Amino acid sequence: MIHFSINTNLFLQALNTTKRAISHKNAIPILSTVKIDVTKEGITLIGSNGQISIENFISTQNEDAGLLINSSGSILLEAAFFINVVSSLPDVVLDVKEIEQKQIVLTSGKSEITLKGKDADQYPRIQEIAANNPLVLETKVLKQLINETAFAASTQESRPILTGVHFVLTDHQSLKTVATDSHRMSQKKIVLEKTGDNFDVVIPSRSLREFAAVFTDDIETVEVFFANHQILFRSDHISFYTRLLEGNYPDTDRLIPTDFSSVVTFDTDILRYAMERARLLSNATQNGTVKLEIMEGVVRAHVNSPEVGRVNEEIDTESVSGTDLTISFNPTYLIEALKAIDSEKVTISFISSVRPFTLVPDDEADSFIQLITPVRTN
Amino acid sequence: MIHFSINTNLFLQALNTTKRAISHKNAIPILSTVKIDVTKEGITLIGSNGQISIENFISTQNEDAGLLINSSGSILLEAAFFINVVSSLPDVVLDVKEIEQKQIVLTSGKSEITLKGKDADQYPRIQEIAANNPLVLETKVLKQLINETAFAASTQESRPILTGVHFVLTDHQSLKTVATDSHRMSQKKIVLEKTGDNFDVVIPSRSLREFAAVFTDDIETVEVFFANHQILFRSDHISFYTRLLEGNYPDTDRLIPTDFSSVVTFDTDILRYAMERARLLSNATQNGTVKLEIMEGVVRAHVNSPEVGRVNEEIDTESVSGTDLTISFNPTYLIEALKAIDSEKVTISFISSVRPFTLVPDDEADSFIQLITPVRTN
Repeated sequence: MIHFSINTNLFLQALNTTKRAISHKNAIPILSTVKIDVTKEGITLIGSNGQISIENFISTQNEDAGLLINSSGSILLEAAFFINVVSSLPDVVLDVKEIEQKQIVLTSGKSEITLKGKDADQYPRIQEIAANNPLVLETKVLKQLINETAFAASTQESRPILTGVHFVLTDHQSLKTVATDSHRMSQKKIVLEKTGDNFDVVIPSRSLREFAAVFTDDIETVEVFFANHQILFRSDHISFYTRLLEGNYPDTDRLIPTDFSSVVTFDTDILRYAMERARLLSNATQNGTVKLEIMEGVVRAHVNSPEVGRVNEEIDTESVSGTDLTISFNPTYLIEALKAIDSEKVTISFISSVRPFTLVPDDEADSFIQLITPVRTN
Repeated sequence: MIHFSINTNLFLQALNTTKRAISHKNAIPILSTVKIDVTKEGITLIGSNGQISIENFISTQNEDAGLLINSSGSILLEAAFFINVVSSLPDVVLDVKEIEQKQIVLTSGKSEITLKGKDADQYPRIQEIAANNPLVLETKVLKQLINETAFAASTQESRPILTGVHFVLTDHQSLKTVATDSHRMSQKKIVLEKTGDNFDVVIPSRSLREFAAVFTDDIETVEVFFANHQILFRSDHISFYTRLLEGNYPDTDRLIPTDFSSVVTFDTDILRYAMERARLLSNATQNGTVKLEIMEGVVRAHVNSPEVGRVNEEIDTESVSGTDLTISFNPTYLIEALKAIDSEKVTISFISSVRPFTLVPDDEADSFIQLITPVRTN
């Protein structure tokens, strides 16, 4: 039966990381628990929602953990409740001891709290992935890719494959990530520092957002392992599994236009704030669009809501070239696209009022491109 | 027709203050608007939810406002939407101009936003209160009184009078404030620095919480005026009206016990954190109580939830006197009582397990007393 003592705060942090995989309202009740596996080497905290699973290992070698193992074993505890209890404890040291009937006694200072646990045998097995030949990625590079693409994935289940981000490695070194919800697309290409086996997978965008929250900036690199329907991201202490999406991702390369009639470079923030103003009124219109008008080198935004009012705004530009044009689109798509861009300047290229337009940050000519489809208005 | 220009940020702050009286989902649609009255002297922003009304005056004399009045008038604008629009404007200066059909044109930098307004004649009149013979109170003293009592008022409409805080001035100088929801009571007495006419009113606790938010710490004093069913708190720029509750407030003085069998002094925070732990488990019990046990000079807290687990905790004390005792109560009442106490030490005095117990902060022997009624268990 389990018996160990540990630094309360470090234990709480590890629990909170693991909790990111645990849904309080899971259709499978056992998945609302956290599994605690205690061995001579340390403690593994396990959480899963069926899509994502997280294993978080605390080693007896970790000096910050102050971990003393007296006796090993496994138990399941209601995750949200257990974490609330641990976060309320008064002392820096927590003693955790299993007693009869799967009960766990937490002792901290003069406080003694007994919680009812469940038999660990009830917990589903997490599929193992053969951990060989990993691809090694810098965490911050991977998080940046996620930031630049995952928002453009679909949130609707009508075409499940579009709820994911397409990751393709070719030539052992060229990584392309792309997401689209069929109204807009975001694609980023990078060349990896370390080579790896080619792959072609679609990772749920929701899993990627959790990845970005779990792998904090102090974790410099992650190892990536692939299995048939799963992917594993692994650091020293954390194993993050996610299910992959099945099916063929659409061919997005053919969507990217090349011949443009009008090209405008904006200050990224100026354009974004103008769109945020426009959105306040476009939300009250029937088709929810803003009209952008390029005329004789001047760019203007217009929204007209018969109910609420109208916006007319001249937007400062860095440069304008090509023919005059009027185009209508959902300002939210442009706002989200601009939020994904770190560069101070962004170049937007148009073909016509009915064809998608592209956004390219000024300092990433070929590597980062976004596409937004206009809305036809009579 | 209205025409003025103003500092955008100051205008936004004044709008946000006024908005505290405006409910987005008011049963009377016109009350979701803000009324803007423009005169030669300045601008008055008016908001009301029928219970509370706020008038916020921006003077042309206020240098931070940079207010230039070209033309006076009145208009109503949808408050939440208007504030969102103003907060999105690009320039430090905002030009506001009424055009035909109650439309308002906001010009800021190169952005021009036109909003549809409504005729100011549709707005209800705010009852006027004869502004003579005010009671002058320090804002921070009044906010402290609110902090110490309003939480104990009832949130249920079954006895409307208990949703208020009873303010009584006697001898022109002795102010008593008291609130109770019949399970607990909080009473604070102070002696005013400046004398005033005696009064006896019940102010809705919800209005008092808004008062505390509206009158920021830089406003040193407020003038208080009474009318039949209303009270007005006024500073240089802000007039805050609230409806009073009708009816007789119960006599709470007779509730306060004097003969005690057991008296314990605690560190306020230590007791509060112990109760917060206990509450985690008491929430999962049938009657939601914690049992406090005083035995041979030692105080212990116990909770036993057959479903979830149990807490047993010894609570450090500063001093214990009197007879042994066991008493059960809702820990939330004790936690909220302790949160209202600034003092590091609190003395709790018990009569028996079925009689209310009192809390008195160590440094306010006679002026601040709270009462909590125990729950009878089996």
